Amino acid sequence: MIYTSVCEMVGIKYPIFQGGMAHISDASLAAAVSIAGGLGIITAASGDTAWVEEQIDAVRAATDNPFGVNVMLMGKNVDEIAELLARKKVSVVTTGAGNPEKYIPMWKEAGIKVIPVVPSSALAKLVARSGADAVIAEGGESGGHVGDMTTMALVPQVCDAVDIPVIAAGGIADGRGAAAAFMLGAQGIQVGTAFLAAKECNISEVYKKKVLNAGDTATIVTGRRLGHPVRSLKSPFSRAYAKAEYSDISDEDLENMGVGTLRAAVKDGDEKHGCFLAGQISGLVNSERPAAEIIKDIFDGAEKILNGANKWVK
Amino acid sequence: MIYTSVCEMVGIKYPIFQGGMAHISDASLAAAVSIAGGLGIITAASGDTAWVEEQIDAVRAATDNPFGVNVMLMGKNVDEIAELLARKKVSVVTTGAGNPEKYIPMWKEAGIKVIPVVPSSALAKLVARSGADAVIAEGGESGGHVGDMTTMALVPQVCDAVDIPVIAAGGIADGRGAAAAFMLGAQGIQVGTAFLAAKECNISEVYKKKVLNAGDTATIVTGRRLGHPVRSLKSPFSRAYAKAEYSDISDEDLENMGVGTLRAAVKDGDEKHGCFLAGQISGLVNSERPAAEIIKDIFDGAEKILNGANKWVK
Repeated sequence: MIYTSVCEMVGIKYPIFQGGMAHISDASLAAAVSIAGGLGIITAASGDTAWVEEQIDAVRAATDNPFGVNVMLMGKNVDEIAELLARKKVSVVTTGAGNPEKYIPMWKEAGIKVIPVVPSSALAKLVARSGADAVIAEGGESGGHVGDMTTMALVPQVCDAVDIPVIAAGGIADGRGAAAAFMLGAQGIQVGTAFLAAKECNISEVYKKKVLNAGDTATIVTGRRLGHPVRSLKSPFSRAYAKAEYSDISDEDLENMGVGTLRAAVKDGDEKHGCFLAGQISGLVNSERPAAEIIKDIFDGAEKILNGANKWVK
Repeated sequence: MIYTSVCEMVGIKYPIFQGGMAHISDASLAAAVSIAGGLGIITAASGDTAWVEEQIDAVRAATDNPFGVNVMLMGKNVDEIAELLARKKVSVVTTGAGNPEKYIPMWKEAGIKVIPVVPSSALAKLVARSGADAVIAEGGESGGHVGDMTTMALVPQVCDAVDIPVIAAGGIADGRGAAAAFMLGAQGIQVGTAFLAAKECNISEVYKKKVLNAGDTATIVTGRRLGHPVRSLKSPFSRAYAKAEYSDISDEDLENMGVGTLRAAVKDGDEKHGCFLAGQISGLVNSERPAAEIIKDIFDGAEKILNGANKWVK
């Protein structure tokens, strides 16, 4: 068993969070991860507040284990979502794209652990000062919205910057990545891409197959020109968008190019128009399996590697 | 002692290569690293063939320990350099920016170990098939010319792709990074940025201070538009170049913007016009020290972490 301060803080068996992936992380995936002893996370960036409430109730109906909700702070209905989460007293809230400072007192009063995703030690320090319980240091090798810093460079620098536990995210899909994260100083890991291949993950078959077939250089970052870089699998859409970024297209038209492309990938499996978010570690994700098996494999692998780590020292 | 197959192959005490940094890695730095028990590496991308020969002779005059030379395969005088290295029978040749296939038979006949830098498992497989002795899997968090893949995602995928030893590069400056690299499957590490702060590193005082003062988000990648991305410290030059990439400037004028900027950083310490290449791990590099001390600290740290790694397993 690999048991850390994050397990204790959140009440989970394995120190693993399932990433809150927009349009993807629903009750089905979150419940499967939480039942397996990790922390399942519902995305609040996919629909209206009523949808989020339904997902929370569905996870609760499936398991008494802790689970979390991820809030994109740049979303439209954030105030409403924030109140819902306090009312529902979910175990954990993770946040993305900003500083959740204004919601922290309300959430903490509801007994919620607040764990922001941070792309830099500066934001890590800020949220720690605002009362965050831990931070997720996410490297830009991850899928979806990305920062520039990578996991290898970011995690130790965030660990030096704050006294709260650090969870490493980005580029982790097996025991090697998990073991490396612990060496860097992390007390847990967050995994997104590997869960795209979970049996309980409700994405289109086309999307799932694209992840399973991806090699190491299958991803591309688009959106840098408008300041919102996103990593996805190379596709007709992402290649066209990447090319357009250096053209004389207006910012508005560029923005419009992206509209509806996540939905087209997740729901419709539209190879041509879809934006298939995924991380660089897609190349290590090669079979569809139950979430429980994905988690067990990661930690069995990590345990073996960590137990043998002193073999390097002669 | 951390002793791996790379130590044995190359005849070094510590499994660490000092990166061959263009315009920077001269006999002074390479000799210091090799004397300390790592593999010092001279850059062949800084000057003409005569300069490289002088540097080789200078390292030989300083130590009998093995050292290497790094060849940028896109350089002008590559054939001439390749022949020089065979004639001088250096211990190791590392290569960048391509496949060194055509030189491998000549180098191997001279008893040289050939260790290409690779940004993908596809190139790793190609060079392994061509007879490379090992590969350096370099993540894009490193300074200088960068690929898109990060160390965390690249190293395990390259380890799965080839049977020869893998050396991890990018984002490593202390024992944590080294220990993480071993967990990912690497048999050694290559370090660049941390050696910019070595006492024996002949860069301008301005450059050295910029590295010592850098925080985690101090770097920026420029050059993507022309297909040659480069990571450097944020500076008036790099910010202006990054802005120009999305403007209507011609490719030719954009290319010209970069001319002479490395020299301006390394030799002149020109804050305004210099391009100060450095990696994301600059934030962990906080003091100027002898190369020997940098190496000892990395491995003392890694040894401690690796010896204690099984503490994670309950």
